[in-house]
Amino acid sequence: MMKLITGGARSGKSRHAETLAAQAGERVLYIATSQVMDEEMAARVRHHQQSRPAHWRTLEAWRELDRVITPRNDPQEVVLLECITTLISNVLFAFVGDTAEETWDYAAIEAEIEREITALIHACERCPAPVILVTNEVGMGIVPENRLARHFRDIAGRVNQRLAQAAQEVWLVVSGIGVKIK
Amino acid sequence: MMKLITGGARSGKSRHAETLAAQAGERVLYIATSQVMDEEMAARVRHHQQSRPAHWRTLEAWRELDRVITPRNDPQEVVLLECITTLISNVLFAFVGDTAEETWDYAAIEAEIEREITALIHACERCPAPVILVTNEVGMGIVPENRLARHFRDIAGRVNQRLAQAAQEVWLVVSGIGVKIK
Amino acid sequence: MMKLITGGARSGKSRHAETLAAQAGERVLYIATSQVMDEEMAARVRHHQQSRPAHWRTLEAWRELDRVITPRNDPQEVVLLECITTLISNVLFAFVGDTAEETWDYAAIEAEIEREITALIHACERCPAPVILVTNEVGMGIVPENRLARHFRDIAGRVNQRLAQAAQEVWLVVSGIGVKIK
Repeated sequence: MMKLITGGARSGKSRHAETLAAQAGERVLYIATSQVMDEEMAARVRHHQQSRPAHWRTLEAWRELDRVITPRNDPQEVVLLECITTLISNVLFAFVGDTAEETWDYAAIEAEIEREITALIHACERCPAPVILVTNEVGMGIVPENRLARHFRDIAGRVNQRLAQAAQEVWLVVSGIGVKIK
Repeated sequence: MMKLITGGARSGKSRHAETLAAQAGERVLYIATSQVMDEEMAARVRHHQQSRPAHWRTLEAWRELDRVITPRNDPQEVVLLECITTLISNVLFAFVGDTAEETWDYAAIEAEIEREITALIHACERCPAPVILVTNEVGMGIVPENRLARHFRDIAGRVNQRLAQAAQEVWLVVSGIGVKIK
Repeated sequence: MMKLITGGARSGKSRHAETLAAQAGERVLYIATSQVMDEEMAARVRHHQQSRPAHWRTLEAWRELDRVITPRNDPQEVVLLECITTLISNVLFAFVGDTAEETWDYAAIEAEIEREITALIHACERCPAPVILVTNEVGMGIVPENRLARHFRDIAGRVNQRLAQAAQEVWLVVSGIGVKIK
């Protein structure tokens, strides 16, 4: 059982996902995909952590997720992964290393990201526990001037489509209100 | 009775709010939170005014809103406040004055904005007339490069969540179509 | 019969529109409004073309659309036009030619675009075949810093409202899921 929660920045999608997780089981394995890079980021992470129950298990991971979402997972421990957009960003930056943006091969980057997403979907399908994935809507603004931003929103949009297709339930969160769209 | 209308720029949210206001009562107190700063802004304000009935009362206010939304308001005069995003922006710029953006304490700014929003929610709850608030969806694009923009969308998102939680009715407007989500 | 499909970038709106078109009739006249300007653009066009059935007729057009969407169209051949946002952009750039952006008269630009949209709506109303129009949500991000981008999202938003009002059916596509909102 896979659920996808999507929404804009600060739309309340994390809280909605946490509510669904708490409803699906008492115990939760929280998988944080974010890497803390600076103080602004650290503040965001702390802000979110404070809103989660202290007894949830937390794991930091964003690649080879089939090592943590497995057929041997405890069926009673709900998996909550947050978030897909950060995962994409991490895979992208790990793939390009410190090469210059002008030289990046976006087709190769997207293929690499697709491999991770394919592995993630397979892992979710084989996992006996409910899996809840949180992602972001990033495509409803004006076309970004920045080339990386344009490619990023294309990739993120296509990943969201794949995940929503694989999921049994999809929610769009707007101003904290969850709207079930699948 | 508090209703929140949200939507993107030029999504038709003003018109939807005006239709709901006209349905809720013949008389309307329109509270405009915008401060006209330049000609582009003035043109937008004129464009909107022309679409509103001439007999509506209009008031310009964006702080101490509990002075205009009160327990003594006429229950027959619907209050329509537009918009929350501009209110946030005005409170922010009044708070920081002419200090440099690098020195701004966003936690203090957000606390100030939260005080205004808390007062607004209490005022709406005590007001005997229906209150309709218009706000904006600003979080469904790519992460802005600009630090102020990033903080602004975080603050606006959290404010929208609070207002939606307090409201009895929430509408998302897309291409002029109102979708009731609460 | 006119249907409007809206959604963010890479939201799956094209695929949703194509599915609706395939359901409405076996034959489809695909009207592409895009002008291929560079390799990035060409790659996007190829990506889309590969997902469409080979036997669909394709036409490139973005102005005087009443010459291709007419009362004499084959009622059995569904018209699928993609996309309105590109049409707006093409009309805008054709209107301003190579003049400097600082000198553009946005009111005149919008009047020109409105003429094209009015003609398009009339053409759709007189056409005996179902017409499916694809457009973009561009107004749910932070206010763009760029003046052209601000005006563009205003114009695009108002055009979307007009089309949605004229349409019998309106769909918002999110992460590949079509949500019928009218």
